Amino acid sequence: MKTHRSDPFLLTPGPLTTSATVKAAMQRDWGSWDDEFNAMTAEMCRRLLGHANATGSHVCVPIQGSGTFAVEAALGSLIDPALTTLVLVNGAYGKRLVSLLERMRRPYEVLDTGDAAPPSPATVTERLQADPSIGYVALIHCETSSGILNPLEAIAEEVAAQERELIVDSMSAFGGLPVDAQRTPFLALISSANKCFEGVPGFGFVIVRRDALEAAEGRCHSLSLDLHDQWRYLQRTGQWRYTPPTHVVAAFLQALDEHDAEGGVKARLARYTRNRECLVTGMRRRGFITLLEDRWLSPIITTFLSPAHSAFDFARFYAELKASGFIIYPGKLTEMESFRIGSIGHLDVAVMERLLNAVDEALAAMGVDDCRPAA
Amino acid sequence: MKTHRSDPFLLTPGPLTTSATVKAAMQRDWGSWDDEFNAMTAEMCRRLLGHANATGSHVCVPIQGSGTFAVEAALGSLIDPALTTLVLVNGAYGKRLVSLLERMRRPYEVLDTGDAAPPSPATVTERLQADPSIGYVALIHCETSSGILNPLEAIAEEVAAQERELIVDSMSAFGGLPVDAQRTPFLALISSANKCFEGVPGFGFVIVRRDALEAAEGRCHSLSLDLHDQWRYLQRTGQWRYTPPTHVVAAFLQALDEHDAEGGVKARLARYTRNRECLVTGMRRRGFITLLEDRWLSPIITTFLSPAHSAFDFARFYAELKASGFIIYPGKLTEMESFRIGSIGHLDVAVMERLLNAVDEALAAMGVDDCRPAA
Repeated sequence: MKTHRSDPFLLTPGPLTTSATVKAAMQRDWGSWDDEFNAMTAEMCRRLLGHANATGSHVCVPIQGSGTFAVEAALGSLIDPALTTLVLVNGAYGKRLVSLLERMRRPYEVLDTGDAAPPSPATVTERLQADPSIGYVALIHCETSSGILNPLEAIAEEVAAQERELIVDSMSAFGGLPVDAQRTPFLALISSANKCFEGVPGFGFVIVRRDALEAAEGRCHSLSLDLHDQWRYLQRTGQWRYTPPTHVVAAFLQALDEHDAEGGVKARLARYTRNRECLVTGMRRRGFITLLEDRWLSPIITTFLSPAHSAFDFARFYAELKASGFIIYPGKLTEMESFRIGSIGHLDVAVMERLLNAVDEALAAMGVDDCRPAA
Repeated sequence: MKTHRSDPFLLTPGPLTTSATVKAAMQRDWGSWDDEFNAMTAEMCRRLLGHANATGSHVCVPIQGSGTFAVEAALGSLIDPALTTLVLVNGAYGKRLVSLLERMRRPYEVLDTGDAAPPSPATVTERLQADPSIGYVALIHCETSSGILNPLEAIAEEVAAQERELIVDSMSAFGGLPVDAQRTPFLALISSANKCFEGVPGFGFVIVRRDALEAAEGRCHSLSLDLHDQWRYLQRTGQWRYTPPTHVVAAFLQALDEHDAEGGVKARLARYTRNRECLVTGMRRRGFITLLEDRWLSPIITTFLSPAHSAFDFARFYAELKASGFIIYPGKLTEMESFRIGSIGHLDVAVMERLLNAVDEALAAMGVDDCRPAA
């Protein structure tokens, strides 16, 4: 993979490193009212539905802002306030779903499995059977605060068997992990421009079952985040309801082209998996320990426990790696010192190998010769 | 003013035509957690406060999404739900303020002066004196649905004299029209990246009095749009609370540099005014009539009444102008056929002269030889 500049690689869960051609797509201005831009929006939505095998059953509605804005739009617009949402929590993004429901005063229950374990489908079933007021289950597909890949398909099956609705925050996974709406039933799946499709940040989108969106009129607590209004306006005029981030949309269309050219979700998953394997193997060889067992590791981002060595200092480690051209991510765990390294974005194993060399140099510069965490 | 490409000029109130150098600033990726990006955010806020002469008394809080998202964030976070807001309406954006308050269930009153007249400061005073439950007045600085420039300073004076709070939606004006927080008292002033500072769309910002923002904890109906939370998080970490549109922010910093290089608000206002004068004089010479009297014309955008001539067709007119490299804007009036042409963005009188030639060609192609509207 060629690099076109000396800017650092972003080994983060997004914003991430995008290709030079994706960024070059932002080199003109579009009228947000013009047919040309409307056609770009329509094409984007059509292609995103295709990637989820959701054409016909679902519609795709983009929404301005960060991914969290799109999650709030989905929860606020789609959830019947009379019903409870069971939120499956195993990290910061699950907790954010709770904060969103809390703020919009919708009833919820929490099933928290800690930082390092996924929810068990059997436990979800038990909770649903025990509480008929639960109408919805909300799940984080890949919880990037630990890097854990949650068992979407198995959970979806149980939720459907119990005749409840599933809302999936697939922010950091969609485009890099397969999703099939016809085999994995969901009410809504939310993602954003700057994750596995490798676009730049500025909007999110919701793939939502058409019948449910039709029923959502006037329900949202926020006008800006009203998914139903946005959809109706798009249907009627071809335009986003309020000013869209035109350049970001243009970059995303280029990113969709490059996603196709690479071979779609399958090829992207294969590349991300190679990146992750190179990273994890290399880091383990150096003595680092991953937070998660192998079976829960995602190809998106991996949490490593910080070395217990007295000379290890995360701020210094970060700065050394940045000086070598790599931006990593701080940890987001409550109980253990950790850091995270992403394997998504416009990068490949050659980049990962260079990162591992940079890790060696950083450790040497700090005088850390033992990377094992506290026992 | 050089043009660097054959893309059409956007003669719209934003998204507008930006310089090639503003767009070129989007040619790298930034880590949204990294110090380098945090410094960009801090610099942006510092400079925006300076442009409003609001340093010290106010703070600047950016918010992801379109300008309307920032307006909703300001209204939802700052307004005490026990008090009524008097909304001064003379067009679509004033009506949108009403829709926002309606959705968030905050009490409001409307003073509607139609499409072509500003609110009178004396009438505002009467309303405030008559109704002590009114705590806030909300005003659109430049109402782009007609192009009218509302008398911000005079209204602000009356509102302050009545000891109420003023919220100004200066979306399409700030950066192109002078605002001085020390002479024109306001609680909050809202604008966005893609207007008179000539950035690309993707976020808005609120210049808000510090004491009022401090009192706004937990008040907002929306987590994503909580201005207080966003501010506290920025203060604590230097970061936006959720993923910022990094490339759009980078473009905006470049746009701020170019705004300074041109000579700041004063020089920009002078250029926009020259653009508008060239446009209006030229269009009137061709027989077109402006909706507004001269004294209410803004340097931002001008509404022209559509010719009554049977051969005039807006869709055709739009397409002809687009083929010549100009994108204009449809009308947004309820009662009269009209269209709008903006005078803001990276363009000057040479562009306006070329537009006028293109108007001649479009009229000739349609066979329209009389541009007067219906009597």
